[in-house]
Amino acid sequence: MKSTLVALLGLITLLHWPGPALAAADSPEVRLQAAGYVLPKAPTPVAAYVTWRRSGNTLYLSGHGDCREEFPRGKVGRELSLEQGRAAAEQVGLCMLATIRSAVGELSKVKQFLRIDGMVNATRDFTRQPQVINGFSELMVVAFGERGLGARAAVGMGSLPGNIPVEISAVIELRNDD
Amino acid sequence: MKSTLVALLGLITLLHWPGPALAAADSPEVRLQAAGYVLPKAPTPVAAYVTWRRSGNTLYLSGHGDCREEFPRGKVGRELSLEQGRAAAEQVGLCMLATIRSAVGELSKVKQFLRIDGMVNATRDFTRQPQVINGFSELMVVAFGERGLGARAAVGMGSLPGNIPVEISAVIELRNDD
Amino acid sequence: MKSTLVALLGLITLLHWPGPALAAADSPEVRLQAAGYVLPKAPTPVAAYVTWRRSGNTLYLSGHGDCREEFPRGKVGRELSLEQGRAAAEQVGLCMLATIRSAVGELSKVKQFLRIDGMVNATRDFTRQPQVINGFSELMVVAFGERGLGARAAVGMGSLPGNIPVEISAVIELRNDD
Repeated sequence: MKSTLVALLGLITLLHWPGPALAAADSPEVRLQAAGYVLPKAPTPVAAYVTWRRSGNTLYLSGHGDCREEFPRGKVGRELSLEQGRAAAEQVGLCMLATIRSAVGELSKVKQFLRIDGMVNATRDFTRQPQVINGFSELMVVAFGERGLGARAAVGMGSLPGNIPVEISAVIELRNDD
Repeated sequence: MKSTLVALLGLITLLHWPGPALAAADSPEVRLQAAGYVLPKAPTPVAAYVTWRRSGNTLYLSGHGDCREEFPRGKVGRELSLEQGRAAAEQVGLCMLATIRSAVGELSKVKQFLRIDGMVNATRDFTRQPQVINGFSELMVVAFGERGLGARAAVGMGSLPGNIPVEISAVIELRNDD
Repeated sequence: MKSTLVALLGLITLLHWPGPALAAADSPEVRLQAAGYVLPKAPTPVAAYVTWRRSGNTLYLSGHGDCREEFPRGKVGRELSLEQGRAAAEQVGLCMLATIRSAVGELSKVKQFLRIDGMVNATRDFTRQPQVINGFSELMVVAFGERGLGARAAVGMGSLPGNIPVEISAVIELRNDD
């Protein structure tokens, strides 16, 4: 009885608390975790580049592909189905989120996505690149809401490094108070 | 006789008026109309993205393809000729102008094009991507003069969404006074 | 004997001089020259675009391909080997350095590369795009050190203008004091 009261008071306090606790409860990290996502380790460059650059409040993200061993290989429309391509795009999103967090500390620093280049390793008659890249963008909506959407191009490439099915680069605006 | 005089005085006034009237007479919208162009309705997203994002005075435009029903389909160099690809690129330009106007109110807010990514759905031996994308850039020169040109890449894609022949994204600088 | 002393004093002075002389000695131009590179003449546009645009301290570079007559043609993985593609990417880098210098006067104005889009005209089963584009990025490291690396995407295109093997565009941050 007493513990129930304490828990109830705790809940009321939490719901009314305007400070860090509630902010954290509503953070992108918490929303991703609640939806069942686990962020991987941030990828390290495989060639002569950096995974991100920052200029003022603009964060430039490298073309991200795989950052976990179980990433699929092949062209969407040939070795891989639309749904497999879409799942790969979601994995690319998790890799990019790991990079963003390593770059700026916490995901709540993201104000909005400005530009997304979604590149699909597809057959020459493939026509559903936007549906593939939605796997990335819908993950970003889980994390950031509508601000996770950006001006976007979703296109079909002739080939991609290591025969990965999807590579995505992005430009992000960070919050001023950072 | 009297109405001619009034019209003449009106014309003289217009030509010497330094304010909004003359500015409007020299607006991108007026120049486009004088050249016979009609802006379509701004396109709406067909997937999980926004058609534009703004960060300070920088406007990011999504990859634009078709925004009218009569848009052609197919690869340049196979189903479509260079000239048809070029006409499609011009249509893409009109769609993007409609987006820009819906984003910032009037086209005179555009200071200059910074970056243009012109992506042509082409055969693997096609070599005239710049001439295709010129259909877009020459329209922008009609609207904005030399400022309608930008740092540009014109390249051949393996495939594009819905088998459209051309997709173009852009980054634009807006005027400070906006 | 006396001339040797003068030369020695001159060398000591040079090594201890904190001003413009030492700065110039450590300039990107000097480092490139010491490594045996010669900058070509800056390329001029071959279609309706400009080779660069500047917005504040951000410099946008057009997709650069060839700017010398001896530039190779063909797809990497078919007419051209990985090593030939890589050498072409280095040539593209020299062309872009020439453009940067013509845009801002001297290469020391470059603070860092923000974004690099490395586009390889490759066969559909080519997988080593990053190694090709490294020819560009390693040149930039010679000129600018680690700041010559940027957030980068290295991808395979279906086709490129004039059948060039490599086209690279970039976004650069310039120093504030410019």
